[in-house]
Amino acid sequence: MTASPEFMIGIDLGGTKILAAVIDKDGLILSRAKKRTKAEKGEDSVLKRLVSASHEAMDTAGVKPEQVMGIGMGCPGPLNPVKGIIHEAPNLGWKDFHLKEAMENALGLQTHLFNDVNAGTWGEYKLGAGQGCNSCIGVFVGTGIGGGIVIDGKLHDGASFCAGEVGHICLDPNGPVCGCGARGCMEAFASRTALTRDIWTEIKRGKKSVISDSVKKSGEQIRSKILRDAYLGGDEVVCKTIDNSLNYLADGLTSIVHILNPEKIILGGGVVEALGEVYMEKVSQRMKRRAFKSMMAPLEIVEARLGDDAGILGAGLLGLQAIETLDQ
Amino acid sequence: MTASPEFMIGIDLGGTKILAAVIDKDGLILSRAKKRTKAEKGEDSVLKRLVSASHEAMDTAGVKPEQVMGIGMGCPGPLNPVKGIIHEAPNLGWKDFHLKEAMENALGLQTHLFNDVNAGTWGEYKLGAGQGCNSCIGVFVGTGIGGGIVIDGKLHDGASFCAGEVGHICLDPNGPVCGCGARGCMEAFASRTALTRDIWTEIKRGKKSVISDSVKKSGEQIRSKILRDAYLGGDEVVCKTIDNSLNYLADGLTSIVHILNPEKIILGGGVVEALGEVYMEKVSQRMKRRAFKSMMAPLEIVEARLGDDAGILGAGLLGLQAIETLDQ
Repeated sequence: MTASPEFMIGIDLGGTKILAAVIDKDGLILSRAKKRTKAEKGEDSVLKRLVSASHEAMDTAGVKPEQVMGIGMGCPGPLNPVKGIIHEAPNLGWKDFHLKEAMENALGLQTHLFNDVNAGTWGEYKLGAGQGCNSCIGVFVGTGIGGGIVIDGKLHDGASFCAGEVGHICLDPNGPVCGCGARGCMEAFASRTALTRDIWTEIKRGKKSVISDSVKKSGEQIRSKILRDAYLGGDEVVCKTIDNSLNYLADGLTSIVHILNPEKIILGGGVVEALGEVYMEKVSQRMKRRAFKSMMAPLEIVEARLGDDAGILGAGLLGLQAIETLDQ
Repeated sequence: MTASPEFMIGIDLGGTKILAAVIDKDGLILSRAKKRTKAEKGEDSVLKRLVSASHEAMDTAGVKPEQVMGIGMGCPGPLNPVKGIIHEAPNLGWKDFHLKEAMENALGLQTHLFNDVNAGTWGEYKLGAGQGCNSCIGVFVGTGIGGGIVIDGKLHDGASFCAGEVGHICLDPNGPVCGCGARGCMEAFASRTALTRDIWTEIKRGKKSVISDSVKKSGEQIRSKILRDAYLGGDEVVCKTIDNSLNYLADGLTSIVHILNPEKIILGGGVVEALGEVYMEKVSQRMKRRAFKSMMAPLEIVEARLGDDAGILGAGLLGLQAIETLDQ
């Protein structure tokens, strides 16, 4: 191996886990490392775990720091990638944390920050389900709902780097209260958090459901795998709740289609991964009933393909792009 | 004047009127011509009126056809600008009409078609309220609601040239039926058609309103000027209806902001022009309550400035751009 830098480190910093990988310029993953975030221990502790995950990934790949061009990190937002600051990350308990500077000081490697869901969308666009198209929208349904926008082959990050907050498309100004404080956001109808809320409400109203047996504590978040088993098993409460929620998701996606007329929508995240084809098919069917034919005709609705790798790959490749742009 | 072509003809083809103008490469308007569309007389008749409007504009400007590079036309969609076909224009009664070819045969001038609201947005972006920004969204509220999207200084027309159908953002899947057949589109809450429907409903329920005096026939479309007078005069039914409708408009705009995080939203169209500042202010206030602060901070919400000129200017300049791209 030569000493000329030819690798990138891609990191996905989440509320519960840190994923790091060494990748080459084409997005081939040479190694992966995983740590728990342990955000409750504070910024310095998380920083140490980020650094040790990076070292572990380099060690496993047999790559030395001097062979690494830099680091691309997907982080919870809102953040300022130019200044390298995480403005607010409730999951981490961070406010205005200078993460770029901290990483650069700790590792001596140029670091670039990106919104985590934007990074995931970029990963899918370059190497996964979005390959070969010109414009696509990534929508990831999990605890919340986030997204990313690719237009003309470029990630659209917006005037304050916040574009893609598709979870906060309004679907009913009088709907259920969302985590953001507003009413009737797509996330308040179709995230796993919303599903959990609606299923427990039905159970409390006296409806029978297998969920009462599978989840110990009433009101507790229901994991995607448990949702899947109940859904595919035909549990009435779970089926009704999920079918209702996916109608809202489809209506939100229809709004995106009417605004942007994209070539592809990539659906991913824990809920989509767990419910798979049936869910995808029902979402498509609902969209076909509501959306303009002229916009549905060129549209492909596809499932994300890279799982957890989307974030580390996207972050690494966006970081590479940022470094190459700076070098020009 | 030299004979080298240095002018463009910009045309705005509407359901009731045709506007044509001769403009120079910087978007200076040398002359204007206006004709009624008279769509009921059929395609050939409309084509003749388009040709005569073009000739009239050239005559008034003292410009000969050989001094004109080509024609840019804003037309009702969906349309295919590459093939030059208007796929469907209910206002004109057209289906799959080869307008580009027809114009080129009739006038001997290269012709390019664009969606009319996209053209209007481009006009405002280049020469009106959108100048100097990188990304903006034009939203025009009239009989219906249409829009246009500018990202990175480029008109985003979408995979099938239909982007910007912001009137069909879903704001309540169980809301009032929209002209498009779906329920609860922004247009079904906030267009002049929706306002008319809601005001007459209130009057039929026995509510008193000045509208019953100003509009002869019950149920008839209420013109924007009459709406303005009643709104500014404090008519209870009109005020309540408009305030309710603008809340929905604001929620739809908030969805756009959350998706695209633009620098500017340009609001125009008959309803916005008539209701002016009060309306703009209330829309902004509602958005501030709902939208993410991080996205509202860089956002300007401004009123369109060019009125009817936006469409002819935008079409002319987009046509110029298309010709220059083809020449490269």
